[in-house]
Amino acid sequence: MSEVDNLRRDRLRERMAEAGLEAVICKLPENVVYLTNYWPHHGFSVAAFTNEGQAVLFLPEIEEDYADPDWAEVSTFGWGLLKDGDLYDSYAAILDEIKTRLRLNNSKIGVERDLEITGPTYRMAEPVVPGGLWSGLLEQTFSNADLSDVSGLIAGARAVKTPYELQKLRTANSIAEIGMRAFVEQLTPGMTEVEVGALVEAKIRAEGPGVDGARLVRPSAEVGAGPIGSTKGTLLVPSTTRVINEGDIVMVELATVADGYWSDLTWVSVAGEPNERQREVYNAVLEAQQAAASKMVAGASFSDPDSAARKVLERAGLGEYFVHITGHAVGYRYHEFIPFLMPGAEGTLEQGMVSSVEPGVYIPDFGGIRIEDNVAVGAEEPDFLSTPREPW
Amino acid sequence: MSEVDNLRRDRLRERMAEAGLEAVICKLPENVVYLTNYWPHHGFSVAAFTNEGQAVLFLPEIEEDYADPDWAEVSTFGWGLLKDGDLYDSYAAILDEIKTRLRLNNSKIGVERDLEITGPTYRMAEPVVPGGLWSGLLEQTFSNADLSDVSGLIAGARAVKTPYELQKLRTANSIAEIGMRAFVEQLTPGMTEVEVGALVEAKIRAEGPGVDGARLVRPSAEVGAGPIGSTKGTLLVPSTTRVINEGDIVMVELATVADGYWSDLTWVSVAGEPNERQREVYNAVLEAQQAAASKMVAGASFSDPDSAARKVLERAGLGEYFVHITGHAVGYRYHEFIPFLMPGAEGTLEQGMVSSVEPGVYIPDFGGIRIEDNVAVGAEEPDFLSTPREPW
Repeated sequence: MSEVDNLRRDRLRERMAEAGLEAVICKLPENVVYLTNYWPHHGFSVAAFTNEGQAVLFLPEIEEDYADPDWAEVSTFGWGLLKDGDLYDSYAAILDEIKTRLRLNNSKIGVERDLEITGPTYRMAEPVVPGGLWSGLLEQTFSNADLSDVSGLIAGARAVKTPYELQKLRTANSIAEIGMRAFVEQLTPGMTEVEVGALVEAKIRAEGPGVDGARLVRPSAEVGAGPIGSTKGTLLVPSTTRVINEGDIVMVELATVADGYWSDLTWVSVAGEPNERQREVYNAVLEAQQAAASKMVAGASFSDPDSAARKVLERAGLGEYFVHITGHAVGYRYHEFIPFLMPGAEGTLEQGMVSSVEPGVYIPDFGGIRIEDNVAVGAEEPDFLSTPREPW
Repeated sequence: MSEVDNLRRDRLRERMAEAGLEAVICKLPENVVYLTNYWPHHGFSVAAFTNEGQAVLFLPEIEEDYADPDWAEVSTFGWGLLKDGDLYDSYAAILDEIKTRLRLNNSKIGVERDLEITGPTYRMAEPVVPGGLWSGLLEQTFSNADLSDVSGLIAGARAVKTPYELQKLRTANSIAEIGMRAFVEQLTPGMTEVEVGALVEAKIRAEGPGVDGARLVRPSAEVGAGPIGSTKGTLLVPSTTRVINEGDIVMVELATVADGYWSDLTWVSVAGEPNERQREVYNAVLEAQQAAASKMVAGASFSDPDSAARKVLERAGLGEYFVHITGHAVGYRYHEFIPFLMPGAEGTLEQGMVSSVEPGVYIPDFGGIRIEDNVAVGAEEPDFLSTPREPW
């Protein structure tokens, strides 16, 4: 028997009860992970969960080995081979089966309608989302039910992570750090940005599977090197074929996912030895990051970590270069939205919420330095899910 | 001035005229590429195109260097920084601007509603699609217009590729083959499946940018090695930490995208020297693949390539192991659907259509052998966009 994270399900059930929902039916890959702990490979899976705690999962038979029957009653359907027929016929049958097996009718059922920004499947090369055809099938099968959008409810339930979820996020972060250590150890002048990114991604793809039992691992790294000309260079810009020079600051922004649980890290290094100014700025950003992280405690407001970071950078004369927010939630997606650590953000940090903590400065003719870790809100002190950095 | 593919726009305008559409407004990344030749990094871009041939593109300012003003009137908006405000406020302003600039009102406008399976942005780690919020904004801005789903119309227009598009697909394929050659050259017993995949992806990420001017390149490789136990192992199953033994058949399924144009290839090799039976089966599949490809000529039916491949494999006593279709379109997505090369498929191949040609057999206790190239329909003979394979 594998461990089932019943705590997260209880939290969802509480919210479902408040909303009067008898069941939720999910197809977004990120919510399928949330309900069943299985990360869809191709995105054609469907999960449903009732207010009584019954979970069912339908997935293509070629993915069956990745589903955990301790988490849900698992059924397979044919997909992808000549024998398998039309996918939407299969979906219609699946929805009928869900209706019958979970005895749903004349009920209030939660479905996914708000899906502008989503988490991908393992096969990132072709996202699959519940679109118009899926909605039509839902309306048809549950013509007597009240179908309401459950996106916000699930996002709220997902915002506070359980110990089980925190462990999964620690695993994603330790896998990500395999790539980051390779970056710092192997960075040399003469490499291109895309070569550094390829190195980081290859380490993670090759060595991530197997860490803490992880099976499906994908990285996505962007590398920015050298002086920057404008704020255009501040965020997640694509790596280029630019050659890295001795003394260049190099920043790696890295998304890593392990079995559907995400890490979002940024590390910075210098090709060669950092000079005095680079050390000063790096250490100021690190101090800001640590100040922000120290506010990741239950009862602080969403804006406290941001204020703390901003105060440090202002004192260091770098305030004007800190042009973005301090952090965003991470979990079943690269970016989740509860909490959002920014000036004026309203809300109270609860134990178990997880955020990136990532102040950064982007200085023309100098370069960009952002230091990003993933930190869970603790009762009395922050709980780093990634490894805190040392000063230069 | 860069080359603009006016031919593809003329084709779209013809279809828009037939449908009485004054304009199309697109947000799906794959359609933004189609209309403007720019591949969204983050997915928040919007493109519109009128029946008079006017194209406008709105994109985050940090992505501006990647937009081509010869293809569309380019406008930027702030995204991602503290100064930038709410994204949906920006969207509302953009839609107003589109309405005014293109003088749209009381018109029939095509929008994207059918989007179950989509192409990703460059930043595959977080797909963005036009969901409920976007639809609401469209309805609000164009309250006097007739908004109709244009997905099928655009898919039809995209099905026949222009010389410009074929060149882009050739580039994606030559980049993909950099990774495939590394696979064949460096495969050795003792490597794991995930290591082989990491090697292929790293070569493409590091060496793809710059080939024929390509800038944004992403691969996604899955590796399957050794004997297979069931049909579960036939398709796109994830790479594992399984160690490859001397004599194992190893198959690499590879999606590669360069600036929004896709390649879909499968190569097979043996760790060590292939034995007699492996040679026989490989050469039979290759013969089937070449027979299928030889039917990629204008006027043939969608089912002809499939029949040709199936006949060869049946004659070789392998028919029962060929359990999937022969091919699917490729272009602005890893998988497009016009044409679909399968038994009974109705439709006539037109010059410029592009399909994968990928017969394969999956034999228990032996392994899987699929040979996949991307081939354009020619007037009199097939036009390979990837490099045809040699017999073993």
